[in-house]
Amino acid sequence: MSAGTIYGVGLGPGAQDLMSVRADRLVRNARHVAFFRKAGRKGQARAIVEGMLHADAVEFPMEYPVTTEIPVADPRYNALLSAFYTQCTDHLQALAAGGADVVVLCEGDPFFYGSFMHIYTRLKDAVPVDVVPAITGMSGAWTATGQPITWGDDVLTVLMATLPEDVLAEKIAATDALVVMKIGRNLPKLKRALDRAGRLQDAWIVEYAQMPRQNVQRLAEASAVTPYFSIVLIHGQGRRP
Amino acid sequence: MSAGTIYGVGLGPGAQDLMSVRADRLVRNARHVAFFRKAGRKGQARAIVEGMLHADAVEFPMEYPVTTEIPVADPRYNALLSAFYTQCTDHLQALAAGGADVVVLCEGDPFFYGSFMHIYTRLKDAVPVDVVPAITGMSGAWTATGQPITWGDDVLTVLMATLPEDVLAEKIAATDALVVMKIGRNLPKLKRALDRAGRLQDAWIVEYAQMPRQNVQRLAEASAVTPYFSIVLIHGQGRRP
Ligand SMILES: C[S@@+](CC[C@H](N)C(=O)[O-])C[C@H]1O[C@@H](n2cnc3c(N)ncnc32)[C@H](O)[C@@H]1O
Ligand SMILES: C[S@@+](CC[C@H](N)C(=O)[O-])C[C@H]1O[C@@H](n2cnc3c(N)ncnc32)[C@H](O)[C@@H]1O
Repeated sequence: MSAGTIYGVGLGPGAQDLMSVRADRLVRNARHVAFFRKAGRKGQARAIVEGMLHADAVEFPMEYPVTTEIPVADPRYNALLSAFYTQCTDHLQALAAGGADVVVLCEGDPFFYGSFMHIYTRLKDAVPVDVVPAITGMSGAWTATGQPITWGDDVLTVLMATLPEDVLAEKIAATDALVVMKIGRNLPKLKRALDRAGRLQDAWIVEYAQMPRQNVQRLAEASAVTPYFSIVLIHGQGRRP
Repeated sequence: MSAGTIYGVGLGPGAQDLMSVRADRLVRNARHVAFFRKAGRKGQARAIVEGMLHADAVEFPMEYPVTTEIPVADPRYNALLSAFYTQCTDHLQALAAGGADVVVLCEGDPFFYGSFMHIYTRLKDAVPVDVVPAITGMSGAWTATGQPITWGDDVLTVLMATLPEDVLAEKIAATDALVVMKIGRNLPKLKRALDRAGRLQDAWIVEYAQMPRQNVQRLAEASAVTPYFSIVLIHGQGRRP
């Protein structure tokens, strides 16, 4: 019997018809489907494929042992997560060794700040692994604003809001176009950094891009934002004949 | 009679099954298909949909009046291109006014350094325009290298190789992960900038990502590269539990 393949399948930003034709086929035909989620939640990636899975599909939810309870800098955070990824990987590897293909559902593009990467590096030399690129959340977000993100030779910088305020302010001041992800509880810090860089008035926030709950607002005027699944961006203003 | 819609349809990096389900449907059903190309060429976007168009589809190739013959800084460059975009726009607007839907084929994602943006800004207040996001060329390229592009809170910077060497060197030295596009005749300059930033050994070049001619090489060792449809990148090395 030959080993099965672990597919890291990017689902895109959220709308089912924004999945690639390749991803759509893999998801609909999958007999084993794995996905990350926070304990007690449905999981963002699993929610995207609602109604698409085969009746016989076996689901393997991989629940993070920790999210924001322990600070990232604490060594216990790293140890817990590392053990968790190894445990997930062991299960997937056993399935593949038994000849099963497994589809791992990934939000956006798997290789762009994705959790799948931790599985990928642990598995790629042991079993066949195949990665299907996808539309990123940021593409979904800038499309939702109805304005192009970059023109001519604009510089685009992508930042995580988890960075220190000083780093954020400095990078924001030095770029033309901007994308910020992983906002969550860092939103007040991000707003201060944008303000220090003189760019707060140019910033937009997109919640749930390309999903039914999508909401696009100017950040400075935004009310009642859900920072946990949102992207902040500033459009470039480069050359446009 | 109601006006038709102009669809800016992102095709993704090149493989047909990496088009979104939405894009696939729009392309296969289109009766009017427009696309940019260099004079005398088939056109990269048109080549991606080869074999997918409806037998009755009317094609409207939009041929650039100028590419590299006149320097970008020359005012004639801007004037020529601006007149060209207006001319294309007039034709598309007339089709839409006559009730026809038109699919404009776009490489990668339409709002990410795309030519469609010039049509979009001229048409969006006159006729219905709809934009379909897509997998970017850079997602196709980093997936082709078999290595994730960004981890943890890596900073990603996207640069055009048309920028001055000093700007390139400075930005490359200040980022974790890097993507460079529009390489062409700027490849020697880009290599010097990477070298000055101490990053040449970390750089990869991907030609024709996700296309049959795809080729992935370390830039420092690359031979016989086709810089005209390629992306240079450096993978981030951020936190990975
Ligand atoms: C761990 S990263 C995963 C990024 C994903 N791999 C991608 O390609 O977009 C999670 C962050 O992506 C952003 N994100 C991804 N998709 C989004 C969407 N559809 N709407 C809003 N934010 C999104 C949010 O900032 C979230 O905190
Ligand atoms: C005008 S930009 C268009 C970018 C496109 N809208 C996107 O989302 O990728 C053209 C540049 O994109 C890059 N590019 C786009 N797709 C590519 C692919 N499949 N392989 C290599 N380079 C690509 C090349 O650097 C090229 O010079």
